[in-house]
Amino acid sequence: MSEILVVGSVAYDSISTPSGHVDSTLGGSANYFSLAASMYSKVNIVGVVGEDYENEDLEMLTSRNVDVKGLERVPGKTFRWEGRYEGDMNDAITLNTHLNVFQNFDPKLPEEYKGSPYVFLANIDPVLQLKVLDQIEQPRIVGVDTMNFWIDSKSEDLKELLKRVDVLLLNEGEARQLSKEQNIVLAAQALQNMGPKSVVIKRGEYGFFMLSEEKYFVLPAYPTNKVVDPTGAGDTFAGGFFGYLSKTNSVWSTASVEQACVHGCLMASFSVEDFGVGQMKTLDWTKVEERHAHYSQIVSYQK
Amino acid sequence: MSEILVVGSVAYDSISTPSGHVDSTLGGSANYFSLAASMYSKVNIVGVVGEDYENEDLEMLTSRNVDVKGLERVPGKTFRWEGRYEGDMNDAITLNTHLNVFQNFDPKLPEEYKGSPYVFLANIDPVLQLKVLDQIEQPRIVGVDTMNFWIDSKSEDLKELLKRVDVLLLNEGEARQLSKEQNIVLAAQALQNMGPKSVVIKRGEYGFFMLSEEKYFVLPAYPTNKVVDPTGAGDTFAGGFFGYLSKTNSVWSTASVEQACVHGCLMASFSVEDFGVGQMKTLDWTKVEERHAHYSQIVSYQK
Repeated sequence: MSEILVVGSVAYDSISTPSGHVDSTLGGSANYFSLAASMYSKVNIVGVVGEDYENEDLEMLTSRNVDVKGLERVPGKTFRWEGRYEGDMNDAITLNTHLNVFQNFDPKLPEEYKGSPYVFLANIDPVLQLKVLDQIEQPRIVGVDTMNFWIDSKSEDLKELLKRVDVLLLNEGEARQLSKEQNIVLAAQALQNMGPKSVVIKRGEYGFFMLSEEKYFVLPAYPTNKVVDPTGAGDTFAGGFFGYLSKTNSVWSTASVEQACVHGCLMASFSVEDFGVGQMKTLDWTKVEERHAHYSQIVSYQK
Repeated sequence: MSEILVVGSVAYDSISTPSGHVDSTLGGSANYFSLAASMYSKVNIVGVVGEDYENEDLEMLTSRNVDVKGLERVPGKTFRWEGRYEGDMNDAITLNTHLNVFQNFDPKLPEEYKGSPYVFLANIDPVLQLKVLDQIEQPRIVGVDTMNFWIDSKSEDLKELLKRVDVLLLNEGEARQLSKEQNIVLAAQALQNMGPKSVVIKRGEYGFFMLSEEKYFVLPAYPTNKVVDPTGAGDTFAGGFFGYLSKTNSVWSTASVEQACVHGCLMASFSVEDFGVGQMKTLDWTKVEERHAHYSQIVSYQK
C-alpha cells in the first residue's frame, strides 16, 4: 500500500489574470495537490467543505483516484478566495478571503488513512499540522508547506513541527522570512538546521532550489509558452513530488527527492496552463511522459 | 589565432551594497568582460578613457592577458557611475552617471584587431556597434548586448544590428521590452526571429534561458553563498561565454553555445563575490575547474 495523505484547504476561487477571469472555480491546496499526486498513486484527502460544495466536484475527485472520505461536510459555506495576478504573475494580489467553514477546521483522520506512508501537510495552522502528525502511524516520508502568516504568528509551533518532518517545501519569500537569511544558500542551510533532511525552495518560473543532506540540486521550471493562472503551482509541485515518491515506493533519500523535484516541476507546469484545476482534471500520463522527455533535454548538461 | 575583441564602456564605479561601499573602483562592461574572457584567451579591448585612468589599471589588464592598445586616452575624465543595490540585489539603483569622455566615444579598431574571430559588442549605442562590425574582417562568432535605453531610443539601428549577429545576450527585462512578449518562451522566439541564431536571456541568480536553433537550454546560476556586488555579472557572463568559444576554437553551433553558457555562469558567480573586478583580478584556473565540477553536480539530472 503506497497511499498518499494530504491535509489542507479546499476552496472555491475567483481569479483574474492577464488571460481572463473565472468565478468560483475549484481550488485550495488540498485539491491542487490531490489532482497532481493522484496521477501517480491513490490519494486520501482530508479537509472541510460547506453545504455549497458541489457533488460533481466530489465525483470528479473520486474519478481521478482521490478518496474523499476525509472531506468533512459541515453547515455553512466553503472557504472562498478571490485574487488577481498582473505582469509577470509571480505574486498573487488577494482581493478577498472568506474562511467560512475553514475557520474552525479540526482535521480528523478516517481510521483507514492513518497508515498512509506518504504524508503532505499543506499550508494550514502548524498547530493543526502537528495534530495531524500525531494521528498518523509510522509515516515513511512527511512533507510540510507553510506561509508568511504562520511564520509570523505561530513560529514556535512551526519550529516544533519542523523537527518532525523529512521535507520542507516553501517558496523563496517564505524561505527568507523563516530563515532570516537573504542569500538562498544560507537560507536553505538555516532551514535544514531546523530539522528537515531536505529543504525544497520553490521559485515559480525559475524552478526549485533543493538542499538535501549536504547536496544542492537546482533546476529551472519547465518553460511553458502558456501561463494562464499560477494559482496552485506550489501545491501541484508538492503533488508531483509526493506522487513520484509513492509510485516508486521510495524511502527518503537524496536521490529519490531529487527525482521527486523534477516531477514537481512537471505537474506545476501543467497546472499553470489553465485556470484553476482545469488542466489537472483531464491530464493524461502520455502528456506527462512527453513533457518529462522534453524537460530532460532542456536541462541536460554534460561537462 | 583565437583572439577575442570586445568594444564597450570603461569606467570607474562607486558602489553601495548591503555588504559595504567602494569608491572609484575599476568597472565598465569592457573591463568586466575582458577580465573574464582573458581567463581563457587573449582579449583585445576597445574603449575610451580619460586622463585620470590609472596606469596601474592598464598594467593589471596587460598582466591578465588583455591587450590595451585599443584603449584610446583622450582629454577629460573617464566615465563614472554611482549605484546602489538593496534587498535581493537583483536591480541596480543608479545614483549618478557622468559619461565624461564616453559621451563622444567613436570606436576605432587598431589594424591588428580587425581579424579577431570572436567579437563581443557590449552595451553601447547600436550605431557604434554597427560601425565596429563594419571594421571587422570575417568574424567567426559575433555577440551583442544592449539595454533599455537603446531599445527605446535606437530600436531601428538595433534591429539592423541583430540581423548581423550570431548571439544576442540580454537580461530578462530587456528581452521582454525588445520582444514585446511577457512570456519568456515567446520572448526568446520573437528575438530569434529578429536575426540571431542564439538568444541568451540572462536571469541573474536564476541563471540563463537560451534558445538556439530550435533547442532550449535552461539552467540556474551557480549558487554562491557570498553575493557582495552584482555589478558586471552580465558582462562577466559574456566573458566566460566568449572565452570558452575562443579557447575551444569553436565555430557557432548549438552544442558549443550551450557549453559557453555554463562558462558564463561560472565567471558571473565569481564576479559577484567581491566588489567591482576584485575577484576577477586574482582568479586562477584551478578555482574555475573546481567550481565547474561542483556546478555540474548541482544541475546534474538523469531521467
